[in-house]
Amino acid sequence: MSNLGFLHLRVVNPYEASFREARSAVGAAAVLADAEEYKSVAEAVADCSLVVGTTAAQHRELQHPLHVLKKGTVHIHRRLKAGSRVAVLFGSEKRGLSNSDLGHCHWLMHIPTREEHTSMNLGQAVAVCLYELARGTAKDLKSKPKQEDYATSGEFERITVMLVEALQQSGYMEADQAAAKEEKVRRMVRRLELSGEDAGLLQGMLRQILWKLRQS
Amino acid sequence: MSNLGFLHLRVVNPYEASFREARSAVGAAAVLADAEEYKSVAEAVADCSLVVGTTAAQHRELQHPLHVLKKGTVHIHRRLKAGSRVAVLFGSEKRGLSNSDLGHCHWLMHIPTREEHTSMNLGQAVAVCLYELARGTAKDLKSKPKQEDYATSGEFERITVMLVEALQQSGYMEADQAAAKEEKVRRMVRRLELSGEDAGLLQGMLRQILWKLRQS
Repeated sequence: MSNLGFLHLRVVNPYEASFREARSAVGAAAVLADAEEYKSVAEAVADCSLVVGTTAAQHRELQHPLHVLKKGTVHIHRRLKAGSRVAVLFGSEKRGLSNSDLGHCHWLMHIPTREEHTSMNLGQAVAVCLYELARGTAKDLKSKPKQEDYATSGEFERITVMLVEALQQSGYMEADQAAAKEEKVRRMVRRLELSGEDAGLLQGMLRQILWKLRQS
Repeated sequence: MSNLGFLHLRVVNPYEASFREARSAVGAAAVLADAEEYKSVAEAVADCSLVVGTTAAQHRELQHPLHVLKKGTVHIHRRLKAGSRVAVLFGSEKRGLSNSDLGHCHWLMHIPTREEHTSMNLGQAVAVCLYELARGTAKDLKSKPKQEDYATSGEFERITVMLVEALQQSGYMEADQAAAKEEKVRRMVRRLELSGEDAGLLQGMLRQILWKLRQS
């Protein structure tokens, strides 16, 4: 929750021992310290205008609309934009949401899984749901575009020339095929997709190797 | 992993106790039973032509391209379509991937989180990454892969070892910084995005240069 920017946790009848244990979650102390405890789901969601249940959707006959996570998220975002307070309800690790819990939900959503293995670990299911919900909601969650820095043709050519000389010094370029081999080297170097920084690094290495080869 | 359809787990030097404990994961017995153990990251990814590291990207200066999960997934799908074997590498719960582990990665990806809380629980991070990777793969993978030919990690490593030796022979690797320099070379080589053919070509060149350098 804390990783993904969801800072309002409400817990219903937490099993005291494991709830306290969870208080040690690295970096999430604030979320746990601020968590509100309720005696019932009804009280916990009383001020919410949309309550979305989560389910592995396997054992029971669902009497609710069921959306796949991605689509459910679209609905939730629409409601959040409209100013609704939305609760996403998760059941216990072992049994999920009870029929009684489900009675408080407007609809359900599930994470698409293999049919052979639908029941997920609770913490992982929460992480996946919140990851999907957080996507694109906040600008600060987006990473800054990476500054692209490609090597120039001049750098590619300098690398080519040095590599060709190193290969000549090493006897790799037989005289009768020298031109063809040089062309082969030139093309290979162009395929390397070097950044400007790596181009500099590679030139430094080749310079040193060449210096050594010329001595012999 | 099992929920989201990823059935091939490789573990490097697992901490025996917790690895066995994990064997009890509900429904995931098959994935754990089939997990392969390796002594090193190098061995674990030797047959993969793309190795993607995962990071919270906060403490260290990264020398790798870093993609946000969504974009990284697009790149990975493209490579899977082309028939590449792809490894996604996760570090330990406490420390993440070491600098040495990162040396085997072609690039890194991260889950977008709050800036105040970037470090995620390992199981949750894996679930989120695999959820994103699983999205739409069925559709994506239907189209017949265009056969491309990417270099494997084993080839990248052989190139690294030869280049390092050439640089040692040339005096580029000062003794006091040898390990750091070797790491730098390893990363640069991983960024080259070599095809299998170019990897072979480059190995041939390096072999020849090395042969000459050893003579002097």
